[in-house]
Amino acid sequence: MNLLFGEILRNRLLWLLAFVPVMFVIQKLKPEAHTLLFALSVLAIVPLAALLSHATEAVAAKTGDTVGGLLNATLGNLTELVIALTALAAGQYTLVKASIAGAIVTNTLFMLGASFLLGGLKHHVQEFNRTNARLQTTLLFLATVAMLIPSAVSEAATAFTHELSVGLSILLIAAYGLGLVFSLKTHREFFGSAEHAAEDAAEGGAPWPLGLALATLAGVTVLVALVSEVFVESVQEAAATFGMSPAFVGFIVVALVGAAAEMASAFSGARKNRLDLSVGIALGSASQIALFVGPMLVLLSYFVGPAPMDLQFWPGAVIMMLIATMTASLVTISGRSAWFVGVLVLMVYVVFAMTLYLLPPRIP
Amino acid sequence: MNLLFGEILRNRLLWLLAFVPVMFVIQKLKPEAHTLLFALSVLAIVPLAALLSHATEAVAAKTGDTVGGLLNATLGNLTELVIALTALAAGQYTLVKASIAGAIVTNTLFMLGASFLLGGLKHHVQEFNRTNARLQTTLLFLATVAMLIPSAVSEAATAFTHELSVGLSILLIAAYGLGLVFSLKTHREFFGSAEHAAEDAAEGGAPWPLGLALATLAGVTVLVALVSEVFVESVQEAAATFGMSPAFVGFIVVALVGAAAEMASAFSGARKNRLDLSVGIALGSASQIALFVGPMLVLLSYFVGPAPMDLQFWPGAVIMMLIATMTASLVTISGRSAWFVGVLVLMVYVVFAMTLYLLPPRIP
Amino acid sequence: MNLLFGEILRNRLLWLLAFVPVMFVIQKLKPEAHTLLFALSVLAIVPLAALLSHATEAVAAKTGDTVGGLLNATLGNLTELVIALTALAAGQYTLVKASIAGAIVTNTLFMLGASFLLGGLKHHVQEFNRTNARLQTTLLFLATVAMLIPSAVSEAATAFTHELSVGLSILLIAAYGLGLVFSLKTHREFFGSAEHAAEDAAEGGAPWPLGLALATLAGVTVLVALVSEVFVESVQEAAATFGMSPAFVGFIVVALVGAAAEMASAFSGARKNRLDLSVGIALGSASQIALFVGPMLVLLSYFVGPAPMDLQFWPGAVIMMLIATMTASLVTISGRSAWFVGVLVLMVYVVFAMTLYLLPPRIP
Repeated sequence: MNLLFGEILRNRLLWLLAFVPVMFVIQKLKPEAHTLLFALSVLAIVPLAALLSHATEAVAAKTGDTVGGLLNATLGNLTELVIALTALAAGQYTLVKASIAGAIVTNTLFMLGASFLLGGLKHHVQEFNRTNARLQTTLLFLATVAMLIPSAVSEAATAFTHELSVGLSILLIAAYGLGLVFSLKTHREFFGSAEHAAEDAAEGGAPWPLGLALATLAGVTVLVALVSEVFVESVQEAAATFGMSPAFVGFIVVALVGAAAEMASAFSGARKNRLDLSVGIALGSASQIALFVGPMLVLLSYFVGPAPMDLQFWPGAVIMMLIATMTASLVTISGRSAWFVGVLVLMVYVVFAMTLYLLPPRIP
Repeated sequence: MNLLFGEILRNRLLWLLAFVPVMFVIQKLKPEAHTLLFALSVLAIVPLAALLSHATEAVAAKTGDTVGGLLNATLGNLTELVIALTALAAGQYTLVKASIAGAIVTNTLFMLGASFLLGGLKHHVQEFNRTNARLQTTLLFLATVAMLIPSAVSEAATAFTHELSVGLSILLIAAYGLGLVFSLKTHREFFGSAEHAAEDAAEGGAPWPLGLALATLAGVTVLVALVSEVFVESVQEAAATFGMSPAFVGFIVVALVGAAAEMASAFSGARKNRLDLSVGIALGSASQIALFVGPMLVLLSYFVGPAPMDLQFWPGAVIMMLIATMTASLVTISGRSAWFVGVLVLMVYVVFAMTLYLLPPRIP
Repeated sequence: MNLLFGEILRNRLLWLLAFVPVMFVIQKLKPEAHTLLFALSVLAIVPLAALLSHATEAVAAKTGDTVGGLLNATLGNLTELVIALTALAAGQYTLVKASIAGAIVTNTLFMLGASFLLGGLKHHVQEFNRTNARLQTTLLFLATVAMLIPSAVSEAATAFTHELSVGLSILLIAAYGLGLVFSLKTHREFFGSAEHAAEDAAEGGAPWPLGLALATLAGVTVLVALVSEVFVESVQEAAATFGMSPAFVGFIVVALVGAAAEMASAFSGARKNRLDLSVGIALGSASQIALFVGPMLVLLSYFVGPAPMDLQFWPGAVIMMLIATMTASLVTISGRSAWFVGVLVLMVYVVFAMTLYLLPPRIP
């Protein structure tokens, strides 16, 4: 328990945890204060996500390389999964889909681009493991194809789309699983540096005992679910107040909130000239959402929520995912980076954000 | 003649030749048994295609490197050409186009992916000549652009589409011809290993004399044409019986049947750690269909068949060809492969096959 | 002044300057002779553009590397800018947009492809600085994304499109500016060879004094503006006479005329085995038009011309720009070239030109 408090004192991001109780109090007293509740829920989710990823890594560190890698690979985006599940249970399919697509695009463009830029402002030229980058971008490409094809070949036909979405989801999860076998087991020597990442991210402070880590994991997951409920309820009305389109909220705001903790690790890695870490987190997280979290939500929608969800995305979202994947592929081919590469990747993200921000509310 | 029988005894695939006479007998006795005739015609085409490619290589081996390379490059997909010509004469334009697009996608994704996977299961990491892979994928890219542009700029306008299709077909055949000059003549030193491929594929057993090879080539071509007629007649009705959509049949079934013989060579090359051979056959065959067989069919449609055929494909097919080309380009950049690369490429193929299989029958 | 005449005598292209006064005389005497005036204005623009780029380089050479590079980067496509401004003032938005898209495609495909081909016919294999090629193609990719997104997410909504276009234009100009800081200042050592290009292009003949260079720059810009007016007025009617579609004129004819002078430099560089120079001119010019000239025209349209112009292009043009960028990226990855690479790139251009030429007049 002292370790948990020690971690909280050491890591300033965790001071935001104070907003968790504040939010619950306000929710009881003023349930109609949507904008305030939205702001508080954002401030509460960020440190909870950080704690969650710290606990996941602590469990992973205790359970050995392969099981640990597996844990990181399945629970690494637990925050995104819990938020999306809450929205799914509330029947907000458009928000769920926008947040999946947005998380992929935000990780691929914003997290990667800002890592390149922040690293490049400090170091003249940086190198990274391009084998890992290539694996992740190819996985992302496969997922984008799976999300593109249903809308490309048919425009209506609901029954067809649902059957196909289940099939594609199983396929993507299988590809993700085989990718783990490949990178953690049969060809791990090519991904050495990425392996290190998890351990290093958990560095600083004494290692947590397994019991504390597991308890934190369970407790914080419940907290994230409770906060997410407030977040999902308040986000649309708050957005209207701020004059944001629903597409902007789902795609950009939810995605940035969900990934805040990972961004902290990715950016600090880039500043320390350990771009392998940053690229691994950014692209690994994007491909995990595309091949595991998203498909999992489709399958879970048959048990949670009012009706099944399919994999058919708004065409604009599919194009953005495709462009994000192409951008990542284009800028990681050489395995080298400098500040301007980061600017270019960020610019593509700003093009998307600006478009979604200005988009008239009835689209999509 | 002994050589021919020797080859038949040595190569177990050729034992399927027994189905050729069986099919003709059934066709006479039970012309309405479409499903049976379809199955028999498939079983008959596979060994005939193998014999055809063996004979082509035998002629090529006798006529020296350049003429031989040229022969392989023009007759290498004789089976696909004969099947498509039969469908063209029957006025089945949708089947012809689906089989062209399907052959490109199947060679690029299934043959390449399965080669990577089969090779990778036996060898940890495999290398191949990436200069040849890059040439073939760039040729494929050009062909895909030529097939994409007519549908991209205009939706109706038949006269325009026909004029344009003839122009583009001549262009693609010219590009293909110049590509042969480049790889067989002016810059052959960069494609050395692919050159070897033809000779090696013809290995095992004594070399055939030219007369036997030419006679086999002529005779088997006639047989393929006769069997194709039964195949084209029965395929749609058999598909309905099996519950397959017409798109699935044209794209997947016809393409797999037509390429069976080449697949045998490509897979055996991959197992023997000669991935150059496999990549050369898979991508070389795809680009040959895209830049030679397909355009040739457009031009021949002015002489064979009830009306001219254009190069305007179903948008879904164009997207699949484009994705197949991008996938091939993405995974061959490094010139290295491992089993999981094969899995990824195959997964893209399965996404397409699953989509086409589930597609409601009225599309496209 | 002797230097100016010396340059004119030395460079045969400049002999075409004789057509400038001829055109003005014919314009006075026979203002209705559209076809003749069109031909004369083309013949007059080509040498003026050559003189303009010579003067720009002479000023650049006098002002030191950084300022010089900056000047080349902003005034390098002065001819295209002046022609487009004239069309903008005349309210011919379709022509302006077609000429922007056409200039990007023509520089990326025709100038690059012809350089590869002309160089490759003389030299077996040529090498070039692929870092610079990668920077330029990534910049082009960003611009294409910025032009694709408005049409991809929304089909109508004029107010939205105009706001977005201004935002995207500012973004692109900022990216272009930062790109200059990167290649001329912080990471100039990676672009060394391209740096040389400007100086070399200005080689031959004594260096011009600053006064002469500036006076030429100013005087010739005025002349280009006057000739452009005749060109813009006559081009559509002349096109109708020659049976060309308006799309073909804007995309192909205007683009070739505007870039004629740069092509002369690029092709001569390729023949001298200095492919760095050619690739730098072709891709640098394309990215300058996409990230500087085009966006500048959008911003200037609020001051010049009857109504503001947006960045929403005809979908066919966006697809062509995207394919051009992908082609450039595909063929410059390796940093090596041979004649057939040039053929392939040119073939993509011919596919576009043929499509636009045959396009029925009412599209787009």
